[in-house]
Amino acid sequence: MSVNCKHVDIETACEFLRGHDDYLILTHASPDGDTIGSGWALVMLLKKLGKRARVVCPDNIPKKFDYLTVPAEDFEPRTVVSVDVADPKLLGGLAGEYGGRVELCIDHHVSNVGYSRLLYLDEYAAATCECIYDLACALEIEVDKPLANALYTGIATDTGCFRFSNTTRKTHRIASELLSIGADSAEINDVMFETKSRARIEIERLVLDSMIFCCGGRGAVIVITQDMLLSSGCSEDDLEGITALPRTVEGVDIGVTVREKPERGVFRVSVRTRSSVDAREFCARFGGGGHIRAAGCELEGDVASVTETIISAINEYGEQK
Amino acid sequence: MSVNCKHVDIETACEFLRGHDDYLILTHASPDGDTIGSGWALVMLLKKLGKRARVVCPDNIPKKFDYLTVPAEDFEPRTVVSVDVADPKLLGGLAGEYGGRVELCIDHHVSNVGYSRLLYLDEYAAATCECIYDLACALEIEVDKPLANALYTGIATDTGCFRFSNTTRKTHRIASELLSIGADSAEINDVMFETKSRARIEIERLVLDSMIFCCGGRGAVIVITQDMLLSSGCSEDDLEGITALPRTVEGVDIGVTVREKPERGVFRVSVRTRSSVDAREFCARFGGGGHIRAAGCELEGDVASVTETIISAINEYGEQK
Repeated sequence: MSVNCKHVDIETACEFLRGHDDYLILTHASPDGDTIGSGWALVMLLKKLGKRARVVCPDNIPKKFDYLTVPAEDFEPRTVVSVDVADPKLLGGLAGEYGGRVELCIDHHVSNVGYSRLLYLDEYAAATCECIYDLACALEIEVDKPLANALYTGIATDTGCFRFSNTTRKTHRIASELLSIGADSAEINDVMFETKSRARIEIERLVLDSMIFCCGGRGAVIVITQDMLLSSGCSEDDLEGITALPRTVEGVDIGVTVREKPERGVFRVSVRTRSSVDAREFCARFGGGGHIRAAGCELEGDVASVTETIISAINEYGEQK
Repeated sequence: MSVNCKHVDIETACEFLRGHDDYLILTHASPDGDTIGSGWALVMLLKKLGKRARVVCPDNIPKKFDYLTVPAEDFEPRTVVSVDVADPKLLGGLAGEYGGRVELCIDHHVSNVGYSRLLYLDEYAAATCECIYDLACALEIEVDKPLANALYTGIATDTGCFRFSNTTRKTHRIASELLSIGADSAEINDVMFETKSRARIEIERLVLDSMIFCCGGRGAVIVITQDMLLSSGCSEDDLEGITALPRTVEGVDIGVTVREKPERGVFRVSVRTRSSVDAREFCARFGGGGHIRAAGCELEGDVASVTETIISAINEYGEQK
């Protein structure tokens, strides 16, 4: 946390938003529903305050979010705000130009590094869109249907549609409000959670074909090589959440995804565990780290030897526990 | 609807529950989270009213619901109530003994055939557990954590974790209340939505391997034969929701599941569509029926000829639209 970054409460954040104009809203790179939903919701909210505002995203916005975006107004920005951006590095190609110029950051990541002049952070919010909803209420702005759709998008996507443990009573209360306003929740859920690209379906097929069980069914390993990515036509977006797959199998306490990096011969190992296994401890022996239920490390070699190393480690680990 | 079945409002339902004792609560066969959640929630609620009550289910209750069930009290039942049972046929092996003896049915299916003496039906409820929650409020019973877990289970499972279009503002409001009370939503979601049996994973693998695209990517067909069911070890439970799979592929407007029935040579065809295609119309040409987005029919023949018939029909249908 920079000494120049000041944590502010909601009143100060509102005062700031009322007191400035000509906003440039920054989202993070590889944009997800929360950063995009927050960005567009904030634009709508600022327009209701009589301000000019537009969103800028370091990467292309996936087509599935088309229903949210509105044509950008042309003006010389004077106030830079970031949404859902925990670290200026996440601004990608915009980091150089704007990373040091962020006046206000609105975020829910406890890991926020404190790079903005002011930081409105609610670490208990399931999504930055919850923070934007709170700001709309505090600013006494009426949430209309387009705003409700933007906010619902961020909240639904960041909680896996209310499935993840970050979902709180407040998350559901806000969702209830947004549905009252007429948010197109069923349509949004359909696009976000019921639609997979052909490439995703193809990589899932390849991955299921190659899934290996070990440690008497307590371990499951999937392998994603560069060849598999090429043959399926998968992009980074298409792989979202795939590391959760091996752990979803009944009886599996330790699910591992071994993924070849673009520099062939180097593998990113992602470990997801259930209650009895410490993912961080498992990864530590390979120089990795992370959290108790999700951790990672890197290994070098050919795919067969790396997979073998992981399987041996799981079997050994399983014997001890 | 039988002439002897009387629709009652919530006050009358409460009066009934207060005025009787020694309850036998019936769930439907192939029990899901809503009928089980409703059954156990009603038992807890009746015990708080000082009554004796136990649940009876026509089929074995899947192990994943173990956290809900409580040991059954032994007593001679005098009052039979059914929950989430739209038709006495759904009572399976209990239909003969109890189908004609149901005093009160609590349900949310608009299709309820009206077989009970009294029927408390809320067709706007996403789950029967919403009705039970309303009854608890009307009876002024404090919803504690075990009751909240039972109710959350039914609401979450019947809405696909708040994803399906039956989810309303009220569904989220109740979920918010249940989380406030301490419902173990994250743990329940993990068991219900993040865990797949080995057999399910295996059948998904086989199904993805055999998925056929047609009509320029607007159609997708999966085939499930009796041989695939045998080799994967799949039970009926393991196949839940699999008919949604082909329609989840991006660009697919008509997703079809062709499933061989136990009598080989007969295939159940399940059709799921997006906005531009009428599933009912598609199935009508094969003597089937259903709804605009979900319909079905039956075809006879060998797997190759049935699949070919379906693919030709999709291609033809696609040319017209």
